[in-house]
Amino acid sequence: MRVVLASQSPARLKTLRAAGLDPEVVVSGVDESQIVTRDPANLAAALAQLKCRTVAPAHPDALVIGCDSVLAFEGDILGKPVDADDAVARWRRMRGRSGVLHTGHCVRLGDTELVDSASTIVHFAEPDDKEIAAYVASGEPLQVAGAFTIDGLGGAFVRAIEGDHHTVVGISLPMLRDLVADLGVRWTDLWSVSRPSV
Amino acid sequence: MRVVLASQSPARLKTLRAAGLDPEVVVSGVDESQIVTRDPANLAAALAQLKCRTVAPAHPDALVIGCDSVLAFEGDILGKPVDADDAVARWRRMRGRSGVLHTGHCVRLGDTELVDSASTIVHFAEPDDKEIAAYVASGEPLQVAGAFTIDGLGGAFVRAIEGDHHTVVGISLPMLRDLVADLGVRWTDLWSVSRPSV
Repeated sequence: MRVVLASQSPARLKTLRAAGLDPEVVVSGVDESQIVTRDPANLAAALAQLKCRTVAPAHPDALVIGCDSVLAFEGDILGKPVDADDAVARWRRMRGRSGVLHTGHCVRLGDTELVDSASTIVHFAEPDDKEIAAYVASGEPLQVAGAFTIDGLGGAFVRAIEGDHHTVVGISLPMLRDLVADLGVRWTDLWSVSRPSV
Repeated sequence: MRVVLASQSPARLKTLRAAGLDPEVVVSGVDESQIVTRDPANLAAALAQLKCRTVAPAHPDALVIGCDSVLAFEGDILGKPVDADDAVARWRRMRGRSGVLHTGHCVRLGDTELVDSASTIVHFAEPDDKEIAAYVASGEPLQVAGAFTIDGLGGAFVRAIEGDHHTVVGISLPMLRDLVADLGVRWTDLWSVSRPSV
């Protein structure tokens, strides 16, 4: 079965590949600002659905997957930081505290569509000002929702999580497995024969 | 500063590289059966210390890191499965239940040594018998403590964790950051200038 990932996130593609899938990437190019809601889980789900619905019509025979992630932190919904100063300010606020990473998932196969969102609590470590400066100087925080990665340089700055790790990276594998099962597809049947050896 | 990883685990090396470090790998070749204890956290720590102490004398100027992981599951301490049948039997027992992944860490710099172990609760999903058969046939579960990975094909078979994700992979980045800080080394000063772009 062809799998199409409606997302340009390299972390999502890498996650699916490490888990045995070999999806085709099709970027939706949607305008995310058209979705407005105060609920972070609903926002992530609506954005995932928008991406999926934009891409799906051109791939009627494929399993199409759309995802989107936002960080909820003390009442705010945080996407990518606007610049380096914003990233520094956020990290000074986030260190030693906790947020919730919400990732919305939408899967479509033929005319059937399923949508759900996964939420994982993230407990941040306490990088000092010099570590924050070095992290922001690396450029990584500027490219990701919430100004951190858990699978990159930011890994040492997350003390612990509660929930699925892959949700934090941007695509929940156990949720995806449940969703495709509801579409009648066994997860392991999606494994590519050309997957890299482990 | 030179960093030496006293472990042959590709997952540990990959984790450190993704986090910005570029360690030299030196395999200790220790006989792990010489350590006997009923406490999984102590066992992981003692094995990490054994690896580190075996490798450190030849690298007096380097920061040497040793790690070892075990899965504690309902009173048992589980390393790698002995064969495919064992891996299948374990997964039939583990699915829908929870274990604790313990990873011991030992860091040495000069004559100073620090040892600690990190523990993360792992909640397994419920793969059906065909998924278990496909997973074991992939060969992956046979090569890892606890018969699962969270960063490979097994990713969809772990529903959630409580604690540090990297502990489950085999090396806790936040714990390592704390340990090297206690040695007077700032984590971000360990980042390699030749790290891959993110």
